[in-house]
Amino acid sequence: MAELVATDREGADTQASELKDLIARQRPGWSLEQPFYTSPGIYEIERRGWLANQWFLLAHRSEIPDAGSYILRELLGESVILARDGEGTLRGFYNVCRHRGSRICERDGRSNSLTCPYHAWSYRLDGSLRAASALSEEIDVSTLGLRSIHVRETGGLVIGSISGDPQVAAALSNAFEPGLRFHGVPHARIAARRSYPTQGNWKLVLENFIECYHCFPAHPEYCRVMKHVDAVAREASKASIAWQESAAAWLAKDASPASPLTMTAAVDQLAICSAARAPIGGGRLTQSEDGRPVAPLMGELKTFDGGVSTFRCEPFIFLAALNDYAVMFQFSPLAAEQTRVDVSWLVDSSADESKVDVARMIWLWDVTTGQDKVLIERNAAGIRSRAYVPGPYSKLESLPARFVARYLSGLSRGNGKPS
Amino acid sequence: MAELVATDREGADTQASELKDLIARQRPGWSLEQPFYTSPGIYEIERRGWLANQWFLLAHRSEIPDAGSYILRELLGESVILARDGEGTLRGFYNVCRHRGSRICERDGRSNSLTCPYHAWSYRLDGSLRAASALSEEIDVSTLGLRSIHVRETGGLVIGSISGDPQVAAALSNAFEPGLRFHGVPHARIAARRSYPTQGNWKLVLENFIECYHCFPAHPEYCRVMKHVDAVAREASKASIAWQESAAAWLAKDASPASPLTMTAAVDQLAICSAARAPIGGGRLTQSEDGRPVAPLMGELKTFDGGVSTFRCEPFIFLAALNDYAVMFQFSPLAAEQTRVDVSWLVDSSADESKVDVARMIWLWDVTTGQDKVLIERNAAGIRSRAYVPGPYSKLESLPARFVARYLSGLSRGNGKPS
Amino acid sequence: MAELVATDREGADTQASELKDLIARQRPGWSLEQPFYTSPGIYEIERRGWLANQWFLLAHRSEIPDAGSYILRELLGESVILARDGEGTLRGFYNVCRHRGSRICERDGRSNSLTCPYHAWSYRLDGSLRAASALSEEIDVSTLGLRSIHVRETGGLVIGSISGDPQVAAALSNAFEPGLRFHGVPHARIAARRSYPTQGNWKLVLENFIECYHCFPAHPEYCRVMKHVDAVAREASKASIAWQESAAAWLAKDASPASPLTMTAAVDQLAICSAARAPIGGGRLTQSEDGRPVAPLMGELKTFDGGVSTFRCEPFIFLAALNDYAVMFQFSPLAAEQTRVDVSWLVDSSADESKVDVARMIWLWDVTTGQDKVLIERNAAGIRSRAYVPGPYSKLESLPARFVARYLSGLSRGNGKPS
Repeated sequence: MAELVATDREGADTQASELKDLIARQRPGWSLEQPFYTSPGIYEIERRGWLANQWFLLAHRSEIPDAGSYILRELLGESVILARDGEGTLRGFYNVCRHRGSRICERDGRSNSLTCPYHAWSYRLDGSLRAASALSEEIDVSTLGLRSIHVRETGGLVIGSISGDPQVAAALSNAFEPGLRFHGVPHARIAARRSYPTQGNWKLVLENFIECYHCFPAHPEYCRVMKHVDAVAREASKASIAWQESAAAWLAKDASPASPLTMTAAVDQLAICSAARAPIGGGRLTQSEDGRPVAPLMGELKTFDGGVSTFRCEPFIFLAALNDYAVMFQFSPLAAEQTRVDVSWLVDSSADESKVDVARMIWLWDVTTGQDKVLIERNAAGIRSRAYVPGPYSKLESLPARFVARYLSGLSRGNGKPS
Repeated sequence: MAELVATDREGADTQASELKDLIARQRPGWSLEQPFYTSPGIYEIERRGWLANQWFLLAHRSEIPDAGSYILRELLGESVILARDGEGTLRGFYNVCRHRGSRICERDGRSNSLTCPYHAWSYRLDGSLRAASALSEEIDVSTLGLRSIHVRETGGLVIGSISGDPQVAAALSNAFEPGLRFHGVPHARIAARRSYPTQGNWKLVLENFIECYHCFPAHPEYCRVMKHVDAVAREASKASIAWQESAAAWLAKDASPASPLTMTAAVDQLAICSAARAPIGGGRLTQSEDGRPVAPLMGELKTFDGGVSTFRCEPFIFLAALNDYAVMFQFSPLAAEQTRVDVSWLVDSSADESKVDVARMIWLWDVTTGQDKVLIERNAAGIRSRAYVPGPYSKLESLPARFVARYLSGLSRGNGKPS
Repeated sequence: MAELVATDREGADTQASELKDLIARQRPGWSLEQPFYTSPGIYEIERRGWLANQWFLLAHRSEIPDAGSYILRELLGESVILARDGEGTLRGFYNVCRHRGSRICERDGRSNSLTCPYHAWSYRLDGSLRAASALSEEIDVSTLGLRSIHVRETGGLVIGSISGDPQVAAALSNAFEPGLRFHGVPHARIAARRSYPTQGNWKLVLENFIECYHCFPAHPEYCRVMKHVDAVAREASKASIAWQESAAAWLAKDASPASPLTMTAAVDQLAICSAARAPIGGGRLTQSEDGRPVAPLMGELKTFDGGVSTFRCEPFIFLAALNDYAVMFQFSPLAAEQTRVDVSWLVDSSADESKVDVARMIWLWDVTTGQDKVLIERNAAGIRSRAYVPGPYSKLESLPARFVARYLSGLSRGNGKPS
């Protein structure tokens, strides 16, 4: 018989024990067994535990600029309201009325209160219940405020989490803030956004995003633009050594001296939250097909130096800043085998629209993300087979191997219990 | 592993115990916990037990007028055949051949027998097997008649139930029959019908239908037409007292003296099956935007008196009779989070079509039911959230609170076992 | 709680015991209980066990003619690659890369290797891994070949199985090969193919295909063309005896003397793999509406003799050879209540296209299979009802009754454990 309640005790214990055995038999350095990529049961455990503890990139601050503005976002199957209250403080709430559970907001807006359209219960932007008619006198209305999620703003990014550790958000802020300010991300606006709904488990999407073993077979445009692909997508080679040397020379000589970022993090990539700079190479000033700028300079850069700054906070937060635009990646797990990838391109908020060439700006990541969607969906299709067994990660897949190890370790600590 | 058989013993016992705990922890006067509104497992238990015991409004007698006519209806996932046999007696059968289980009928029709299109087994309209070729002589064909459901006709309404108590149908008949005859419902025809497929649990649909706490925020048209909304949708107030007085005056002075109905049931509303009269108010003769008639007088009324008679048999049977038309509500649970609402408008069968203004007749309940569909779907969406917790029913939601209590009590008695 | 892993031990034991009880209570000579036709759990057990052990008709050899050609087929939810290697030997592989599990091929092709589009791992047509860059030296690449399925070619037919007994394939070959060669099937080409996606369990599809009790009520065209329907679709009768006599006379006098087939198998139909001949009757030379030829003679026939040869290997392999064309039936279980039927019409590979009248050739089986799709879907719809109970097979349904008995016996031996 199907379960009646997602939190039924006995079932949860069986699941926890089953999951423990499954985790224990995963082989380090090899991809995961099928259920991690396909099981709705494991996805539900993740959604209530491991995933709920992660931080996600929810918005850019230009999307919720002023006191009184509020926007809706999806987070792990939840509709959440991001609101800037009267003091300008950012708040995050579940979009669920405390009366009968109705969705309160249907679209973004601006107001000093949120009123449920069903029975007109009304809430202040700090979440407290302001008005509800015909309530019994016995009801303590102070207990009926909106339930909140964690949110934090840093360097123009709005991040949020169901139940994540605030210390992780602080670490992200430490790692990101100086570089994001240098690149003018707090004062940017969104010039373009594209969605890539992908029929595959969120782990397949992330594994794809953090390895470049597939770049040569699958991303000819990306390889053409990014000279460093030789360094990261081939084994130690003359090309790799030559690249390291030319990049170091670039950093010493050509890179903007105002930048607070170094190449270190990009090289060792061990820190979970990191920011680093490197040259695009090949004489390109930005990530465009011909290397020429697509928008006005951003932030503190005085001239084009052809660098790319990478902000990474595994598993879900990634942003790349070029000289003239930034590109922000959002990954939204939707179901066991469904993930949405959103890519947003940011330019300086004061940039004249006639100076922003959107088509040339989005070209590289639009074509590359579209290719990845196809690769991931083929990967997911193959994993559904009874013949699928884990395979060995190559030397160029150390990041997915590390991600998978951390994931298993975190899942194991959580013991599969709902948060 | 998923269950193989819906009636497996051990699983059913676990479910029953789990359900008992769940029922026990519901808080009186507060809305239900999430699983009651979302769980396919609970829906399946309801479908085989609690819901199977309820009576539903299946048709108006004009839809199946003569001996030999038969029609198809959906009831709790079942295709059922309603047939009027040679004696004019109404019968209800599952649309399932006793040979290999094929659907027998694909559409409404008229015949003195029902023949399965697969292997030509043929049944009389009393359900008995009439002909089946090449059967082994050992087979007792008298055991191979169509399986039946409960049906009953009263005052022009055809009601049915999988396994409901015939005494409930008798109580409904006692409460409804005189008023329905007064309003001419047995001799009506269906002038319009609209369907409102609603993505939400059937209990959310019913809770919405039986409270008017949401009328002011959500139904401006209904509030404009129905003066009594002030009385039922606000707390005790001058307006409420004034309404009671004017309604009593109407009943004493203006209401048709032929009517067998009083205002009582509408006031106390405690009886499960009840019928009552009240004035629309505001000088309106019927429920139309301007209050003017939309069709010829029905039944025994000699002049328009501006009354509205309400026939209620919770949880599923509702009809309102105006002077010139009646409106019939059908609620069909389809899945844990899917319900269909059908609204039918009846006029006198002899009414000249040119005298029936369908657009003006359906206006109020079409716009109101459309608004309710949106409200219910928002309610259902919010309840899916992990942040949803039951909230307190207000003083104006005594009917939903009572409905929920009765539902839990019935479910508890049934103990979750399949019927 | 839902299962996490399809092979979890405890759940599998419960399922096996539950299935054993269910099998034990089935009544011989009556149709199966509902779960066998609707339960996703039972379908999954079948898919991993009983169905995996069956042989399926995957292709005609003309679809994969030369060394280096490869084609994709679906088999029980698996994408499989059929490839003819350098020696011309037919091979069958799961379309799953041994690295991270990606699908390798997206479409049919011709090559001496198969390269995964994700990370460029490449395989020889014998399945062995040929190239994979950046692998750790510790990995034994000889263990990383493609996983294979069973395949066999016989008389122009390509059959395959996940884990079936090769002796069954050999028995099929013994029964089919001489007759298929006589009819020129190895040298045929596919002139037409039609798909009939059917919303019903695969057993309902097969039960329909192997009984003719429904022919009179449901297939007027088939009854018009096939004189023998009187013999098989009615109880022993004068017509039946007359048909047997005229068929025997046809075999003695008119049938091609070169044919290795007799009427025997068609009469007793007890052998699982059989091939037999009979006349169409009524003066028809082939299965066309007017009985006149629709294509040039095939195989060793020198003149039209009006015979039909039937090749049957229950449960999944059926082919009928007329004088001028052959018709091949493929049944693909897709889900508990989803099956695809593909019908292919074969003519001699050297037949001039202008001499092949496709519309007249496909007429009989296209109209008949379309009718069967509707019948099966109605049957499936009725079986979903709570009112469905098994019914008695008639005397004209001995083949479905036998099939069901064999199925239960095989399922019982497999004990419900995954293969």
